[in-house]
Amino acid sequence: MTRLTESARGVFVIAATPFTSDGALDLASVDRLVDFYLGHRVHGLTLLGIMGEAQKLTAEESLQVVRRTLTRVAGRVPVVVGVSSPGLAPVASLAAAAMDAGAAGVMVAPAAGLRGDEALFDYMASVFRVLDPATPVVYQDYPQSTGVYLPVPLFHRMVDAFPRLVVLKHEDAPGLAKLTQLRQETERDRRRRVSVLVGNGALYYPQELTRGADGAMSGFAYPEMLVEVYERFAAGDVDAAEDVFDAYLPLLRMEHQPGVGLAVRKTLLHRRGAIASPALRAPGARLSVDDQREIERLVGRLERRLKG
Amino acid sequence: MTRLTESARGVFVIAATPFTSDGALDLASVDRLVDFYLGHRVHGLTLLGIMGEAQKLTAEESLQVVRRTLTRVAGRVPVVVGVSSPGLAPVASLAAAAMDAGAAGVMVAPAAGLRGDEALFDYMASVFRVLDPATPVVYQDYPQSTGVYLPVPLFHRMVDAFPRLVVLKHEDAPGLAKLTQLRQETERDRRRRVSVLVGNGALYYPQELTRGADGAMSGFAYPEMLVEVYERFAAGDVDAAEDVFDAYLPLLRMEHQPGVGLAVRKTLLHRRGAIASPALRAPGARLSVDDQREIERLVGRLERRLKG
Amino acid sequence: MTRLTESARGVFVIAATPFTSDGALDLASVDRLVDFYLGHRVHGLTLLGIMGEAQKLTAEESLQVVRRTLTRVAGRVPVVVGVSSPGLAPVASLAAAAMDAGAAGVMVAPAAGLRGDEALFDYMASVFRVLDPATPVVYQDYPQSTGVYLPVPLFHRMVDAFPRLVVLKHEDAPGLAKLTQLRQETERDRRRRVSVLVGNGALYYPQELTRGADGAMSGFAYPEMLVEVYERFAAGDVDAAEDVFDAYLPLLRMEHQPGVGLAVRKTLLHRRGAIASPALRAPGARLSVDDQREIERLVGRLERRLKG
Amino acid sequence: MTRLTESARGVFVIAATPFTSDGALDLASVDRLVDFYLGHRVHGLTLLGIMGEAQKLTAEESLQVVRRTLTRVAGRVPVVVGVSSPGLAPVASLAAAAMDAGAAGVMVAPAAGLRGDEALFDYMASVFRVLDPATPVVYQDYPQSTGVYLPVPLFHRMVDAFPRLVVLKHEDAPGLAKLTQLRQETERDRRRRVSVLVGNGALYYPQELTRGADGAMSGFAYPEMLVEVYERFAAGDVDAAEDVFDAYLPLLRMEHQPGVGLAVRKTLLHRRGAIASPALRAPGARLSVDDQREIERLVGRLERRLKG
Repeated sequence: MTRLTESARGVFVIAATPFTSDGALDLASVDRLVDFYLGHRVHGLTLLGIMGEAQKLTAEESLQVVRRTLTRVAGRVPVVVGVSSPGLAPVASLAAAAMDAGAAGVMVAPAAGLRGDEALFDYMASVFRVLDPATPVVYQDYPQSTGVYLPVPLFHRMVDAFPRLVVLKHEDAPGLAKLTQLRQETERDRRRRVSVLVGNGALYYPQELTRGADGAMSGFAYPEMLVEVYERFAAGDVDAAEDVFDAYLPLLRMEHQPGVGLAVRKTLLHRRGAIASPALRAPGARLSVDDQREIERLVGRLERRLKG
Repeated sequence: MTRLTESARGVFVIAATPFTSDGALDLASVDRLVDFYLGHRVHGLTLLGIMGEAQKLTAEESLQVVRRTLTRVAGRVPVVVGVSSPGLAPVASLAAAAMDAGAAGVMVAPAAGLRGDEALFDYMASVFRVLDPATPVVYQDYPQSTGVYLPVPLFHRMVDAFPRLVVLKHEDAPGLAKLTQLRQETERDRRRRVSVLVGNGALYYPQELTRGADGAMSGFAYPEMLVEVYERFAAGDVDAAEDVFDAYLPLLRMEHQPGVGLAVRKTLLHRRGAIASPALRAPGARLSVDDQREIERLVGRLERRLKG
Repeated sequence: MTRLTESARGVFVIAATPFTSDGALDLASVDRLVDFYLGHRVHGLTLLGIMGEAQKLTAEESLQVVRRTLTRVAGRVPVVVGVSSPGLAPVASLAAAAMDAGAAGVMVAPAAGLRGDEALFDYMASVFRVLDPATPVVYQDYPQSTGVYLPVPLFHRMVDAFPRLVVLKHEDAPGLAKLTQLRQETERDRRRRVSVLVGNGALYYPQELTRGADGAMSGFAYPEMLVEVYERFAAGDVDAAEDVFDAYLPLLRMEHQPGVGLAVRKTLLHRRGAIASPALRAPGARLSVDDQREIERLVGRLERRLKG
Repeated sequence: MTRLTESARGVFVIAATPFTSDGALDLASVDRLVDFYLGHRVHGLTLLGIMGEAQKLTAEESLQVVRRTLTRVAGRVPVVVGVSSPGLAPVASLAAAAMDAGAAGVMVAPAAGLRGDEALFDYMASVFRVLDPATPVVYQDYPQSTGVYLPVPLFHRMVDAFPRLVVLKHEDAPGLAKLTQLRQETERDRRRRVSVLVGNGALYYPQELTRGADGAMSGFAYPEMLVEVYERFAAGDVDAAEDVFDAYLPLLRMEHQPGVGLAVRKTLLHRRGAIASPALRAPGARLSVDDQREIERLVGRLERRLKG
């Protein structure tokens, strides 16, 4: 089993959680989806994020998803498990179970309602206290959802204090200047350089790679785009990377819609054969015939453009 | 086992969840707390509300609290269990387990992010579909936390559509005019009259009783006040009811502070011998020596006033 | 002077408000910007929106901008003036002054904090009461900023009640299904058909035109794109319209960033010679050298693509 | 003319803004209200706060209120004028006009949307740059409205950097521990001690005086309570101060209701003869007959208690 480190690179795709049309967990589709992601050469998987409908699962179901995925992945790529919760006790118990089952690390977003630098630092200190000391941690910086703002100097203080903090999932918005500031201050002060993987629907992915991101932690239904952009960028061909990104952007933007984006994503994953049903677990958005026709049209345009 | 009905009256105290100082569930204190509440003659108990730190418990711990409480109560009063969750599946599984264990009903707040009357109605319809048809439901109207506004006409539409919707936990703010509107429209249209129990820290309790509330669903550390106000009011002695309320108001207001109110409440419950430790589970507020001295002073003033 | 009606079509560009680098109103640039917009054949102008930094102007400055713009436009296209305010009195006084100066109509977003259908309807009724009865009104549906959700049935009730409500600025998100529902219900119930112009950065512009929008009320720094997409779409060449849109999408997305989008827009307008300084009035975002280089790069890519 | 300094003490009542029943500014009632406040021996006045409906006034009306008030006060007590605005330009112009007219200082809340310590510090630096260097400033710490959290160390950094920052209007919630921390750090580091006046409806006034507040900046309709509590506390009779406070608490709590509190306050001011009409300017809450009867009842209870 590989543990996540600061050298994490590439695409740690945010895995969808498959359900049957009547809302039951669809474990067979978990296998299919793992095969789909690995077939598109992702560098890792991230389970139980917001886009994985983690908050709609019971505790047992969460573990079922983790174990099924880890079994199917069988060590081929590292798997990160989201364990955020309003209480430290559920954080600790899910993290322990996930690491036992073979996860490479856990992802934590701060509890909503924390105010001020000290409160956030103390919260993360308490998280690290309840985790096994060997557990690698991804900090999810997503203030749009948590309401908790992370200043760069505070993040560096956390990097110094918590050696197992190895990845920043960067999805603050606006976030481009923050990413530049982070990389500059790390270098200026000769600090430990953590991995930065970008979320936020990867809407600014090429710009973020240029500014020092190491890859993406995003769930776009065409993970091959995320991988290809990363590879071309890593190979130094920035314009080619951006050409690929731009071709997919009209569709990517549809997955970025608040409230319905995940339904678009699952419809695309279903259309591509990666999951048996596009259903979200209730409560969740449903697409109309108009919505589906619109997606179909955009897929057709994408395919023509990729051929061209 | 008694099921909750529209005739629910009096004080269904919101039970605190006791933890040891290191954050473990303190089941022995659950017994002690039940004895404390019943010793103060409450008419019912409500478990796993926001003030019960429900969101910090694992699923197994939630069930442990429910079962321990029900065993100790032993049918003497009805027990309501909060089952709100972002996903319907956890709502259904906790509700089923709670009812199996002998609960009298469940309390549901709408999932955050619902927009518009239709979305809210549909959500509640889906909740009732996943519950056993015999399960009585308390609707928790708490938009300060959920962001979901409940107009009175929509509530009446729900009352008509869902026969097992039997109690409104009223804690919208401002809420006094809404309560009056609710009672007037019920009567005008000769609808089924549900029970209304007030939350929101009981800060407007006498006014709410005058406007048609049937009691309180609140967790004030002096439940005898909640009971006595209810009884005096029911006996027609409104001024005496309000005199009692006013005596406790300086302390009640301290429990109503955002962020630290629950720490004040648990400190008082601990001081009164109802729980072994005043600790909140992490992450949670802690009181300073200044805070404790301040509470001590207010308790002293209360005791002198009650003697006078 | 033309009044705005339900037949409003095309691009009513949201005009930036130009400032000098020390924050003074730059009225000479108002002229230049009007020439720029009209040179790109927009169908109308919209002043004093959020993206026009309206909230940072004094009342006198607002009027100066309105008058200077109207003088320069000289009746060639209709000009809409944003008059939203927490108080009805400022709404009324700015609307009266704007209409006196020759505006074609006013734009109103509901006051923040309204809860429920009745409160929103009553608010709009009170707005129409304080306006001159001949003043045409654009309703700005932007709940991300106001917190006020507008259900389609309520909007139709408003259309019936207020004959001078002639345009919906559609920028709810998600908004595509809402737009379809609006057009379907208008037709099904044979109601008055109002104009719908889309905002929200025009991020879903082709899809919205397909679903029944009549144009855009957006401030993208390349208004020629907004116009060309509209014209090609109106001519029935949907794919060509979308090709144009897609070419600009990488840049449009940069203007859609929360917090810094307007700084990107003004930088582009300045680069294109439309305003003398890219400065936002304080407090406002400033772009770094990195930001500017990034924009430069995207402009280069756009220009190459347009040539291709 | 006296300028506001760090030695500000006592009650700087937040003045209501009187309107006629049809929403016009009622300048005659401004005089009457000034007489009422001064008759109850307040130590200062604060105009154009949120509770003064400042955001509903036009710029000219704001100045009319400021000038009329200053004329009537005629230098007997210092008058602070709220000048908060999303733009620095309106802050500067209203502040200059108010100081010209004889105000003792201005009150500023940070613009909404600032994120992080640096952004807040920079914002305040830019405020001080646009003000006349002699203008004393009250910082309004009200994150419930602005969304901007002020950590104590940052406030002290501001106190060091801005010599004209002389008062903190303290209305963060929870706020008691913050007040203690502020006073302790001031003393420990031997910093300049600013005045702290409490807002937030004065709901924790006796506790805040104990923790180091110097008075209140609140608009309770019985300013004599605010004054008497301050005086008894200053005289060392803490219990007597708290007895007075407790007597008014049932009524004070009614003014603290979100959304309708100001309507309660104006109803009480009208009942006491301080203003000609209880009307709020639209949009604003209106009280029903039930509401009024309820207030009447609470006033009756208060009067009996004060006699007893």
